[in-house]
Amino acid sequence: MTDNRRFLLRRRPQGEPVAQDFELVTEPKPSIADGQFLIRNHYASLDPAMRGWMDDADSYMPPIPLGAPVRASTIGVVEESRAEGFVPGQWVMGLHAIEDYSVSAAGGFTQPIDPAIVPSVTNYLSLFGAVGMTAYFGLLEVCEPKAGETVLVSGAAGAVGSIVGQLAKIQGCRVVGIAGGAEKCARLVDRYGFDAAIDYRGKDEAALVAAIAKEAPNGVDVIFENVGGIVLDAGLMNLNMHARVGLCGLISEYNSPEPVGARNLWRLIVKRASIRGLLVADYVARFGEGAAKMGEWAAQGRIVVDEHIDDGIEHAFDAFMRLFSGTNQGKMILRIA
Amino acid sequence: MTDNRRFLLRRRPQGEPVAQDFELVTEPKPSIADGQFLIRNHYASLDPAMRGWMDDADSYMPPIPLGAPVRASTIGVVEESRAEGFVPGQWVMGLHAIEDYSVSAAGGFTQPIDPAIVPSVTNYLSLFGAVGMTAYFGLLEVCEPKAGETVLVSGAAGAVGSIVGQLAKIQGCRVVGIAGGAEKCARLVDRYGFDAAIDYRGKDEAALVAAIAKEAPNGVDVIFENVGGIVLDAGLMNLNMHARVGLCGLISEYNSPEPVGARNLWRLIVKRASIRGLLVADYVARFGEGAAKMGEWAAQGRIVVDEHIDDGIEHAFDAFMRLFSGTNQGKMILRIA
Repeated sequence: MTDNRRFLLRRRPQGEPVAQDFELVTEPKPSIADGQFLIRNHYASLDPAMRGWMDDADSYMPPIPLGAPVRASTIGVVEESRAEGFVPGQWVMGLHAIEDYSVSAAGGFTQPIDPAIVPSVTNYLSLFGAVGMTAYFGLLEVCEPKAGETVLVSGAAGAVGSIVGQLAKIQGCRVVGIAGGAEKCARLVDRYGFDAAIDYRGKDEAALVAAIAKEAPNGVDVIFENVGGIVLDAGLMNLNMHARVGLCGLISEYNSPEPVGARNLWRLIVKRASIRGLLVADYVARFGEGAAKMGEWAAQGRIVVDEHIDDGIEHAFDAFMRLFSGTNQGKMILRIA
Repeated sequence: MTDNRRFLLRRRPQGEPVAQDFELVTEPKPSIADGQFLIRNHYASLDPAMRGWMDDADSYMPPIPLGAPVRASTIGVVEESRAEGFVPGQWVMGLHAIEDYSVSAAGGFTQPIDPAIVPSVTNYLSLFGAVGMTAYFGLLEVCEPKAGETVLVSGAAGAVGSIVGQLAKIQGCRVVGIAGGAEKCARLVDRYGFDAAIDYRGKDEAALVAAIAKEAPNGVDVIFENVGGIVLDAGLMNLNMHARVGLCGLISEYNSPEPVGARNLWRLIVKRASIRGLLVADYVARFGEGAAKMGEWAAQGRIVVDEHIDDGIEHAFDAFMRLFSGTNQGKMILRIA
């Protein structure tokens, strides 16, 4: 193959992305310079954070340039190499883009991976990738749950949330998840072992406050927040003293023209509680430690992971938008080749 | 005197309090039971937090009951005592109410104070009271400023804010204050030693963001937040990595019918920053330690405190409302007798 299909960002989405914000183009397969290597991408991770990278905002990494392919974590195989330590045939993962071929260089974020030691190589985009490590370090190090405490997880049926809930159970906590729809709520309890699930659909803030109070009768000690908006506001109304809110994401506002934030911030004073932002990039040096623990629990059957794999780079837009419509069931992954 | 004038809460304010929400009544001087003592109140502290106590909300202490006198920290003299450790003539401070006479009991929050060791007995409601201790423990223990960091203080000309700024200077920080009006801003720099002052009046969020960026060219490491609303949102846009926001108060929303909170919460993720609620009540056992340090710095002339004393319980409402109109200059105190 000599073509490189690339899923480009053509203009910055205003609110909810539309297909016209992107373009799938075919370019020649890129060549590499000294110190570089060429990756044949097989799978791309689709994550809510990518929506933020499409905005022209001062964030933790530069915006995706207009006309560039959409940045994504991918896994693939080295096809050609002029870089030490990367040989053709080697599987790698890293922050690349939604395209057939990416050029990377030694000393960057691209890391070798071993497909032989995991059930599926795609697990490097879920349990053993940014998603799993976000859950692991975000819950255990930012939220510090203790046995017997109650942990509330929003976006609980999502890739990160479903793992967070299972990790919180392993820590001996009562775990309450919030998700959209009866099917997802059933999955939280039946498949991921949450103690209770709350369907946010059709509920206003007061109804959410009451639902959380019912399922967390001793109050909430930890919130692992992926959603924001009234979901977060309702959680804040149920905080216990010295509660910790780990702020992982705010998917409810990623497509809104203005930030939404949290209105019930005054609860932090009443309960001497805290909200702390978390980003998995801070823990890259410790991924080995986290992956080893996750592998151990997975092997013991104490953590399960679901992956929703859509097939074909031509479906990149529709697959990405599942994150916002909630029509995915598990970690959203795009199969490129 | 045998009368007890009491400033009662008659109905719960809707938004901004009005005079009709309160009533000044005259009742007989109360009698005391075994274990109790009677305090002749001389001064009452007027604080923004009292507005929250007037609402029927689940907070860190019960709402002021309708028909009860408005709860306030006061200082006064024991007039009669049937409690061990409290003798007539002894000065005391504690959480009482805006009234001529309060009944208290041993084992409560009422503590003896010594007017001989301070420049003015009213300093027990400012530098050596909840205000000073809020600044001391809130800044030093919740925000943990380090020498060379930049500290942003909102409500900086207020009772707590003006002390916070001086403490941050003692810690070796660059200190930027936000206040309302040119006169207050001049006072921040000239009297309290802030490095810079920003007048929030007439500025929208974007203008505030730019003004903070100008005065904090290396970014903001600590926010000591007393105000909320766009003042907090503008501060969040200027955070440095791992910044700490100590949430002391949200005076801009205390009279609003709905909570406002913070819209730019996403900045916490970008900067891995935190917001932590703080309440001085958590540090009561360590007030002695804090007061000793404050006394030392005050004696060295490194901390000055201003008190705005309005005279007469009949002016309780107007004096309280100065906190929201900002017409006070320093710690707001009501002289009762």
